[in-house]
Amino acid sequence: MEDLKTIIRDIPDFPQKGVVFKDITTLLSDAKSYHRMVDLIAHRYFGQKIEQVVGVEARGFVLGAALAYKLGAGVTLVRKPGKLPYKTRKKSYELEYGQDTLEIHEDAFDKGTRVIIADDLLATGGTMAAVYDLVTELGAEVVECAFLAELNFLKGRQRLPDNKVYSLLQFD
Amino acid sequence: MEDLKTIIRDIPDFPQKGVVFKDITTLLSDAKSYHRMVDLIAHRYFGQKIEQVVGVEARGFVLGAALAYKLGAGVTLVRKPGKLPYKTRKKSYELEYGQDTLEIHEDAFDKGTRVIIADDLLATGGTMAAVYDLVTELGAEVVECAFLAELNFLKGRQRLPDNKVYSLLQFD
Repeated sequence: MEDLKTIIRDIPDFPQKGVVFKDITTLLSDAKSYHRMVDLIAHRYFGQKIEQVVGVEARGFVLGAALAYKLGAGVTLVRKPGKLPYKTRKKSYELEYGQDTLEIHEDAFDKGTRVIIADDLLATGGTMAAVYDLVTELGAEVVECAFLAELNFLKGRQRLPDNKVYSLLQFD
Repeated sequence: MEDLKTIIRDIPDFPQKGVVFKDITTLLSDAKSYHRMVDLIAHRYFGQKIEQVVGVEARGFVLGAALAYKLGAGVTLVRKPGKLPYKTRKKSYELEYGQDTLEIHEDAFDKGTRVIIADDLLATGGTMAAVYDLVTELGAEVVECAFLAELNFLKGRQRLPDNKVYSLLQFD
């Protein structure tokens, strides 16, 4: 995986001083790396009857859409407030740089739907913990939360059920 | 295509009174319809050496990511202001409900890169016209702008080179 890690670009002091931002756009735009990333993550779920892949706005839509396509599943969108047009369930949460709210359509899942939640990066875990709650509150079964990359030093994994977190790439 | 059209949900008075919003989430979350949509659009570009698929934030990331995967291309993100961490080129434009700005990384393309721009919906065309300008100003060649659906009565197609617009579904 070292080649996939090295193609991710470090941006110092973004979005604020002292933070080194992992810019995954350099990986997404490299066709071979992008395909390898999707295939490696999807391979983990073959034969597991994944019915929906939940994509978290906005970068999580990329991995979510590609994984869903590869796995023969549908895509469910978790969005910022006011973006989903039908009746929604909301969840507010603390994140690294403030507070935020996410929404999901309340009719998103049949009971027991087998779901992967996809996002690009596991940092503090606040976003994914909120999404995890939204998805389970609507009656779906979370098979796993799948990330392109995990920032181990932020310990976001501790905010989620440990056996339901998978990250393709690890940054110490 | 009639089955794909009917699975898109009409939401009256969203995001404002008098507008009937086309809710594509019902299509995305239906696994068979989602796959059929991606395959039908991708099929149009097989053998055309598409190198990048540009996804427009946020719903365009879904179609963009899936198309890129299917076509063996990379994904390039066009985002709302302040979201892309590296040096960007910006473009402001009028849209149906106000004004907005979009950004793209200035090193997104090698000169002559063959590009599809993907978004979910062609409405007034203001967003896509801005993205089209950004992409061409950076030296890429736009093969086509691909949409899941087009609202014909808003005539957005007139704001783009007519022979470079493709929509899978048409709403009159």
